[in-house]
Amino acid sequence: MNGQGKIRAYKKGCGYSYITGAFGAIELLRVRPEAARIIYLHSAYTGSGELTALCESAGVRWECNDAALRRISSKENTFVAGVFDTYTDELRADRPHVVLVQPSDAGNLGTIVRTLVGLGLPDIAVVEPAVDGFHPKTVRATMGALFRARIARYPDFDAYRTAFPGHRCYPFMLENALALGEVVPPQAPYSLIFGNEATGLPPEFAAIGQPVRIEQSAAVDSLNLSIAVGIGAYAFAARGNKP
Amino acid sequence: MNGQGKIRAYKKGCGYSYITGAFGAIELLRVRPEAARIIYLHSAYTGSGELTALCESAGVRWECNDAALRRISSKENTFVAGVFDTYTDELRADRPHVVLVQPSDAGNLGTIVRTLVGLGLPDIAVVEPAVDGFHPKTVRATMGALFRARIARYPDFDAYRTAFPGHRCYPFMLENALALGEVVPPQAPYSLIFGNEATGLPPEFAAIGQPVRIEQSAAVDSLNLSIAVGIGAYAFAARGNKP
Repeated sequence: MNGQGKIRAYKKGCGYSYITGAFGAIELLRVRPEAARIIYLHSAYTGSGELTALCESAGVRWECNDAALRRISSKENTFVAGVFDTYTDELRADRPHVVLVQPSDAGNLGTIVRTLVGLGLPDIAVVEPAVDGFHPKTVRATMGALFRARIARYPDFDAYRTAFPGHRCYPFMLENALALGEVVPPQAPYSLIFGNEATGLPPEFAAIGQPVRIEQSAAVDSLNLSIAVGIGAYAFAARGNKP
Repeated sequence: MNGQGKIRAYKKGCGYSYITGAFGAIELLRVRPEAARIIYLHSAYTGSGELTALCESAGVRWECNDAALRRISSKENTFVAGVFDTYTDELRADRPHVVLVQPSDAGNLGTIVRTLVGLGLPDIAVVEPAVDGFHPKTVRATMGALFRARIARYPDFDAYRTAFPGHRCYPFMLENALALGEVVPPQAPYSLIFGNEATGLPPEFAAIGQPVRIEQSAAVDSLNLSIAVGIGAYAFAARGNKP
């Protein structure tokens, strides 16, 4: 393992994480080969042609290693895993961002990352304290889309704001909010800001930009965070793409 | 228990299900009191004033019963559960519908129900074979919104179509599809149709109406079903509400 030691079950701060399944490993090799450490295949895996060819061309080691797969996955039928070094991204200043303030659910974060890559808004700011974006549960929920996202973490919202002072802010909240259907996305880059799953955004966020609310019935107190992010990002992206 | 026997852990077809948590139990008592069988409270539950008052006014029994709560919930901190008879709804013919063809994930279905109630499209057709809509995992994921939805199950899509021949159909799929942003929702009632999480809709659905696709990057093969339903339903409902 090039002196990096045995790959064990993930622990926060261990410096690596892994994605299970052939599709995720292929995405790793295609999109982030520089982060890939090793690809593990199970001795019963039969579809290794594309994967091993990708490993060769990317210069990434692969190994048939059932014991390693057992160590890192509790699922019986894990035939492929891609181990990668955790990394840090910078967000693009010329692109819209989605800012997640203190997200706490690993599966939710993974689904959100996947959704935003799909909707063409892959620049994601995560404001601490927040769930670990490299936890295997988060990674798995992205279904390989993780590697196409640019995710940066900030100790607090001010640190994000200072880094991108030119972005127009749209906090999703109820106070003084404009209905999402009434918002005209700006030409300038913008930031769509969403609060924690349980608590939403604190009231002071109303002052940082134009608050937006998703039109919804009073029968439900709030939509699931990943659904709200999907609807908000779609509405901005779809309208922003038009002339 | 009025001769109905002891409430045990849920099994499909047992004739009842339950929702845990005070908020869900309150929704049950407010919206579907006729289905409520009994409310269980834990001996350590301290906020019972509103719940027990609602029980009295709705004529629903409540009982402090730690053993019953243990039987139906594996979580240690379940302080409230509402047990209810499973029921059948009819969809309203004058309202838009969302049709889920063979949904297979309980949590997904629950999130979708919650989202659609929130977006004002609570009429939901479920085409078999499909996940059990009264499984406690589905019920929990609705966070109480289940009782405000009207959910009807159909043995196949033709049975749904025969019941609502006047609805304009919009299957969400890629073949011959119009971008969601280009669709003008009709004045007449409509049906938004979504396929199974893994397989989507089979090609023949393209013939039943106007196929619609959510504009997305090729980097992600498809959005999570609950996200796609949220985006599709929002886009139709938000535009449909305008003059």
